[in-house]
Amino acid sequence: MTGSSDSDTKGFERLGHVNFSGQYDTDAVDNAELIERRNKYFAGSFLFFHNPVHLVRGEGVWLYDDQGRKYLDAYNNIPNVGHCHPRVVDAICAQARQLNTHTRYLHENIINLAERIAGTTPQGLDVSLFACSGTEACELSLRLARQVTGNSGIIVMESSYHGNSKLVGEMSTITYAPDARPTWIATVEPPNAYQGPFRDGDGDLSCRYADLVDDAISQLQDSGHGVAAFVCDAIFDSQGTLEAPKDYFKLVYEKVRAAGGLCIADEVQAGFGRTGKYWGFEHYDVVPDILFAGKPMGNGHPTSLVTTRRDIADKWAENDAYFNTFGGNPVSAAAADAMMAVMEDENLVENCAEVGSYLRARLEALADRHTIIGNVRGRGLFQGIELVKDRESREPAPEVAARIPDRMKDEGVLIGLTGRYGNVLKFRFSLVATRENVDTLFAALDKVIRDAPRTMS
Amino acid sequence: MTGSSDSDTKGFERLGHVNFSGQYDTDAVDNAELIERRNKYFAGSFLFFHNPVHLVRGEGVWLYDDQGRKYLDAYNNIPNVGHCHPRVVDAICAQARQLNTHTRYLHENIINLAERIAGTTPQGLDVSLFACSGTEACELSLRLARQVTGNSGIIVMESSYHGNSKLVGEMSTITYAPDARPTWIATVEPPNAYQGPFRDGDGDLSCRYADLVDDAISQLQDSGHGVAAFVCDAIFDSQGTLEAPKDYFKLVYEKVRAAGGLCIADEVQAGFGRTGKYWGFEHYDVVPDILFAGKPMGNGHPTSLVTTRRDIADKWAENDAYFNTFGGNPVSAAAADAMMAVMEDENLVENCAEVGSYLRARLEALADRHTIIGNVRGRGLFQGIELVKDRESREPAPEVAARIPDRMKDEGVLIGLTGRYGNVLKFRFSLVATRENVDTLFAALDKVIRDAPRTMS
Repeated sequence: MTGSSDSDTKGFERLGHVNFSGQYDTDAVDNAELIERRNKYFAGSFLFFHNPVHLVRGEGVWLYDDQGRKYLDAYNNIPNVGHCHPRVVDAICAQARQLNTHTRYLHENIINLAERIAGTTPQGLDVSLFACSGTEACELSLRLARQVTGNSGIIVMESSYHGNSKLVGEMSTITYAPDARPTWIATVEPPNAYQGPFRDGDGDLSCRYADLVDDAISQLQDSGHGVAAFVCDAIFDSQGTLEAPKDYFKLVYEKVRAAGGLCIADEVQAGFGRTGKYWGFEHYDVVPDILFAGKPMGNGHPTSLVTTRRDIADKWAENDAYFNTFGGNPVSAAAADAMMAVMEDENLVENCAEVGSYLRARLEALADRHTIIGNVRGRGLFQGIELVKDRESREPAPEVAARIPDRMKDEGVLIGLTGRYGNVLKFRFSLVATRENVDTLFAALDKVIRDAPRTMS
Repeated sequence: MTGSSDSDTKGFERLGHVNFSGQYDTDAVDNAELIERRNKYFAGSFLFFHNPVHLVRGEGVWLYDDQGRKYLDAYNNIPNVGHCHPRVVDAICAQARQLNTHTRYLHENIINLAERIAGTTPQGLDVSLFACSGTEACELSLRLARQVTGNSGIIVMESSYHGNSKLVGEMSTITYAPDARPTWIATVEPPNAYQGPFRDGDGDLSCRYADLVDDAISQLQDSGHGVAAFVCDAIFDSQGTLEAPKDYFKLVYEKVRAAGGLCIADEVQAGFGRTGKYWGFEHYDVVPDILFAGKPMGNGHPTSLVTTRRDIADKWAENDAYFNTFGGNPVSAAAADAMMAVMEDENLVENCAEVGSYLRARLEALADRHTIIGNVRGRGLFQGIELVKDRESREPAPEVAARIPDRMKDEGVLIGLTGRYGNVLKFRFSLVATRENVDTLFAALDKVIRDAPRTMS
């Protein structure tokens, strides 16, 4: 199994070569006995790589396996301030030793955290609710939006991924067949200027892509659902790490609001600095009505959030309330607060923007060397390169792409694969990454791509 | 606001006197400034008690507030082996300092944990999947059941509570009006021999209550949903902590399986020893097809599980897979493994059964003294007493019950309130509780009930 997109949890057809029951060729893997024990007692998720890696230690951008081999982590976005950052670990330990309860007793940690979050968001977006996972936070965002608007329809991108509950799974259009979509979902084509219906040279791409939202709105209004929300990940992870045209979100937000809907930013991937700004939506000069985030929030500790305006929270609270057993508990709040404090004290958003620019320059230099790279894009320390069989036709090269994460692992660098055509190599670094780390990625990629066959026979 | 049931997160009408916006009388509370800050930046869940308690430390069965006041915790079921148990905290700290990733890399912790879980369940029930919360585990259980059976209908108890996502919220029939129920839900009356339609003396209660499932099955078959699963919490927390008649589950399981459905045990409340057996269903000599659990699993660390049979997991995996970013990560697995190791090494299931018997005896002695106590029931360290205006009529006394958690807090004991009539005082102790702790509860309850007015004017 190769490194793969977060969105591959259900999208079975996109994973034809994956054996989920984990029947690896035991002669060809390093940890056959461990894999066998795992297959006996565990089910659900598959392992990355044809020869799965057995990790035992992490520090900063580095991971170490049971053989002492060292890997540059250019894939995992959860250890936001680096694996096992001592300040985050210390905060977790100190609070776990002191008290861990829930939000029905007064505790300062959750208040301090909520206040700190309000300090990172645009003015007015300063009321937070807490849950455990991105999925739970997405569920809660929709609950607010539906309650407050009185509508039930949701607009998402084609090939979106937002999480894995029933509701959020149905919003994750990359994970199942289009004919199974419920009527409360309307999709729009993601603003992909490289592979989408409108490309560079096709006029004002902001307008052309934003206008597609009109159809989605009409569809939801005609079916009686109305528009509760437009939900979008500003880094378009599952669509292959896109940069939307400059005014795209502004125009879309206007249309959605005019239709009575709320604009929800899924910041699970883009949030907490990864794109070189604190929140992904900041690149587009818009302010969502609700944002939700998760993965990097606790640097690995399970925690997530929903942040909204007071008027929305109050209107929602007239008829609803939300209690999550673990959400916002003193330990989770301590973990998130420490992670955010490290981001601030170590100037990590700035570092991300700076090293991210360098990453972009290196990836572009790589594209100069290898014609299989059709497009370089992304922001900050979340970027991707799209592999194509031919630069003219832009025909995706997923067969080649699928082999590269395995080969990169052998070179000591962990990367991922994403996009609706499975042909985008995805690079996500911790915010502490350096130019030197980027150079290591560059050297390994250069070697692996040079050795890769252009097509699979 | 009084101590209240876990099921009160959405059940608005049951909480008429609660002001969710938290506009407490600032002259009458101890922490007005903190509450004000909380209300500014946080939304979602309300605080327990009219004068909310500001907790700062926990140890074993004890909690301490900012004034140094000490409370016996007879409410919280999450700190299963006692607040801040050093072995669990040490396991979390050691692993958090070493590595925290996810289940797509090999790691021994999750395998060790899954193997340990298999050692506690009936033979055959030995394949586990991991998530973060009880809600996520319930979602995943249904996903397995629906996929494997090909049916979509779910049978739950009236006044059930299973969690807070859209799907699981709809299964939580105590949280919203009956006329809003989707057609894939069918409910049955819980086997309440004290307040239900069939009571002691009405013949074979196992049969009479189990036969109600026939209607639910027919309803789901007639609507075309078929029966995917019967989902039940064996301690009936939200229904007021019931003991089902001896053969109830056996008979129900037979009916559900004959209709092509699976039997799912919601062990979020009853699991991990709380009822004096490792799993709640063991009291009824049945083996479910799927169990899910959460709250006490990590002694406060956010983690949950689904455990099922290999044949079910394999059949499900033919068409689906599940990845949860945080579920089963090395730190969560270390927390759960340590909690379970403590249970074993300190013989806590046995302690729970033993101290639970003593708790029962003391509650019965209390009922001898106070005629307002109509019924004593529950198992192990999860028991309840039902307050009634009159023992003959059994008319619930929710107005009195609602005042008792506040008064008990003033006496230094934290308890809860539950049940569809809001008149059941709920006692849940950590498995490390002692007879002396039970005596403390008894003395406080005796005093508070003695002073309570029989009716509210």
